[in-house]
Amino acid sequence: MSLIVQKFGGSSVADAKRVMNVASIVTDTYSAGNDVVVVVSAQGDTTDELVAKATEINPKHSRREMDMLLSAGEQISISLLAMAIEKLGFPVVSLLGWQAGFSTTSTHTAARIKTVNTERLRTELDKKNIVIVAGFQGINKYDNITTLGRGGSDTSAVALAASLKADRCQIYTDVEGVYTADPRKVENTKKLNEITYDEMLELATLGAQVLNNRSVEMAKKYNVKLEVLSSLTRVPGTIVKEVATVEKMLVRGVTKDTDVARVSILALPDIPGIAFKIFSKLASKDINVDIILQSVGRDGTKDITFTVQKSHGELAKQLIKETFDIPDEKIIVDTNVAKISIVGAGMESHPGTAAKMFEALYEINVNIQMIATSEIKISVLIDVQDADKAVSAVHAAFIPSGK
Amino acid sequence: MSLIVQKFGGSSVADAKRVMNVASIVTDTYSAGNDVVVVVSAQGDTTDELVAKATEINPKHSRREMDMLLSAGEQISISLLAMAIEKLGFPVVSLLGWQAGFSTTSTHTAARIKTVNTERLRTELDKKNIVIVAGFQGINKYDNITTLGRGGSDTSAVALAASLKADRCQIYTDVEGVYTADPRKVENTKKLNEITYDEMLELATLGAQVLNNRSVEMAKKYNVKLEVLSSLTRVPGTIVKEVATVEKMLVRGVTKDTDVARVSILALPDIPGIAFKIFSKLASKDINVDIILQSVGRDGTKDITFTVQKSHGELAKQLIKETFDIPDEKIIVDTNVAKISIVGAGMESHPGTAAKMFEALYEINVNIQMIATSEIKISVLIDVQDADKAVSAVHAAFIPSGK
Repeated sequence: MSLIVQKFGGSSVADAKRVMNVASIVTDTYSAGNDVVVVVSAQGDTTDELVAKATEINPKHSRREMDMLLSAGEQISISLLAMAIEKLGFPVVSLLGWQAGFSTTSTHTAARIKTVNTERLRTELDKKNIVIVAGFQGINKYDNITTLGRGGSDTSAVALAASLKADRCQIYTDVEGVYTADPRKVENTKKLNEITYDEMLELATLGAQVLNNRSVEMAKKYNVKLEVLSSLTRVPGTIVKEVATVEKMLVRGVTKDTDVARVSILALPDIPGIAFKIFSKLASKDINVDIILQSVGRDGTKDITFTVQKSHGELAKQLIKETFDIPDEKIIVDTNVAKISIVGAGMESHPGTAAKMFEALYEINVNIQMIATSEIKISVLIDVQDADKAVSAVHAAFIPSGK
Repeated sequence: MSLIVQKFGGSSVADAKRVMNVASIVTDTYSAGNDVVVVVSAQGDTTDELVAKATEINPKHSRREMDMLLSAGEQISISLLAMAIEKLGFPVVSLLGWQAGFSTTSTHTAARIKTVNTERLRTELDKKNIVIVAGFQGINKYDNITTLGRGGSDTSAVALAASLKADRCQIYTDVEGVYTADPRKVENTKKLNEITYDEMLELATLGAQVLNNRSVEMAKKYNVKLEVLSSLTRVPGTIVKEVATVEKMLVRGVTKDTDVARVSILALPDIPGIAFKIFSKLASKDINVDIILQSVGRDGTKDITFTVQKSHGELAKQLIKETFDIPDEKIIVDTNVAKISIVGAGMESHPGTAAKMFEALYEINVNIQMIATSEIKISVLIDVQDADKAVSAVHAAFIPSGK
């Protein structure tokens, strides 16, 4: 007998019909002889409705009260799913974050899971109950309700799977798995049967919005076997694990990320430590810097260019301007950029990969502004207007078309 | 400095504007130098919406999951009220039932409060926070969420006031206090400045829907000074306490209760113990019997007539029929009846009160079917069609018109 954790997002439980669909997936898994723990997000519209209510009353509400408000959303969805499972005649119990043992840090709206005390969960599983757990939420050491922030329910599911030593953690979504590129925008994409944690991490970080990257990090750390699959069709999805079976594909995915701003600082004095000081300052304000390009010094000055999240572009500029007393016109922020990346664990042993990517972009006349590489990833920064055709061209160059 | 508990029902927090109104009442009380604990129900429509969702998915849901679902309603209203108070610039914290220390019995949807552990509440009050508490909910010894059933938020408020030894427990509603009769239906009604617990209990039980009677019982037991007042107008309400100042009114209230069925069992064998057996049987099924009338025996048989809650009428008939093997036509259920009552603590020392009531009814040609009296109450059962005019006539007979 296996223990399986299943996670369903807000769109999977958006209305009564979909809740019944989830109930049938869960009870089929249980009927097949498995112990089942289910993590659910708030229903599709609930979070938006609650946010609207809060904004109408006080747009500057505290994060503590926002957590109190929003966590009611999962409370509604877990009890409704439990009722649907009761209707199908199975033993079930729903548990809130604190009842399921989720202890988190104290940072409201962006808490991190510290521990999951599985005592209550074990008791309910021993009673042969299907256990429905509210995702996204926990309590801090002061017994206040916290939420985990964006994508938090994925993390809740992986944390539960790790704590319970589950045999598998299934993340149900509205696509059938992880694809080589976004199938709605690129032709001849392929669903991957398996993918490594590291590849998934790069894909998650780069904007393939299938899995939250914190949840993949946690899965890798605790060796939780993840499966991404669809709640609408009953077909196998993509397995995420330590070592994936090679599928004769060097590149496993092509991604596009448009949530990028490029910041250039021109004619900085070429003295030691200046780059360090700038990036420390940005880090101190939680501004994450991604690709960095530094020009060779000339006339005692140099240029530094880097990318940040789009919303951090102007913030970074103001911060650098004020801290280092640099004139406004010497700091340029460009938000009309996109980052195109290829990801694949086998890449490092194939030196021609980067050249092949650049050639594909050259052939469609796309100018590369910046380049960054890691062991399993190559990213280029290009004009946002070229982004979609660049993804298609790169995908065509690496992923064989046809079955 | 006083400690004041304030309770607001669902209609008082139905939308953003009303939430802001409640916030201003609460912060005015706090600004006047009081410690304030506020108990709130779910917003007007929330409970109905949640019940509709549950019914759509599974009308035969468990009570345990219903408690999980419905308790989300107060979670929403307490956080929104806290945000409104934050907007006015006051320190505030919202607490769920379990966070506020409410331990209850295990009966889901109809739990009773066992204890209120005030440790967290005291800590928050010591920090000078306004404390907003979710009414209607608690947890049982298994850490499952429970709700208190109808009118539960009143009980939550009184339990908090008793546990914190509050100076006053204010129940805000949409009327200005307790009236001598329903002011929407009867002319020349008067708001009472004070009323005793016992009088209030009779009025609550008899259908004056101002206060839940369990909350009045608890207030009497722990000597909590209650005040019923309006959240819309800022005028003093009605104080409920042990001994009320006499306001030259023998009768303090005239009430109408139409949630009544009269059950008559005809030609029962006149043997000892038969009445006892019937009423024990009804009690064993939680059917509460109110007025009882037993005819004098004749020809070795007697008739027994009693009143029950309207929804229990047919149930009582079936139960008696099956248990005592009485033919169908010998048990008559009449739901076209109403109970009219007068209540007043001074009544027992005024023997003419009953006669005056009967005379008032006689003068408008209303037939009395049954009579019941207690030390502070006289009730009569009449045809439901006569109910409104009967209340007006009795009110006019006892309550002096004019200021």
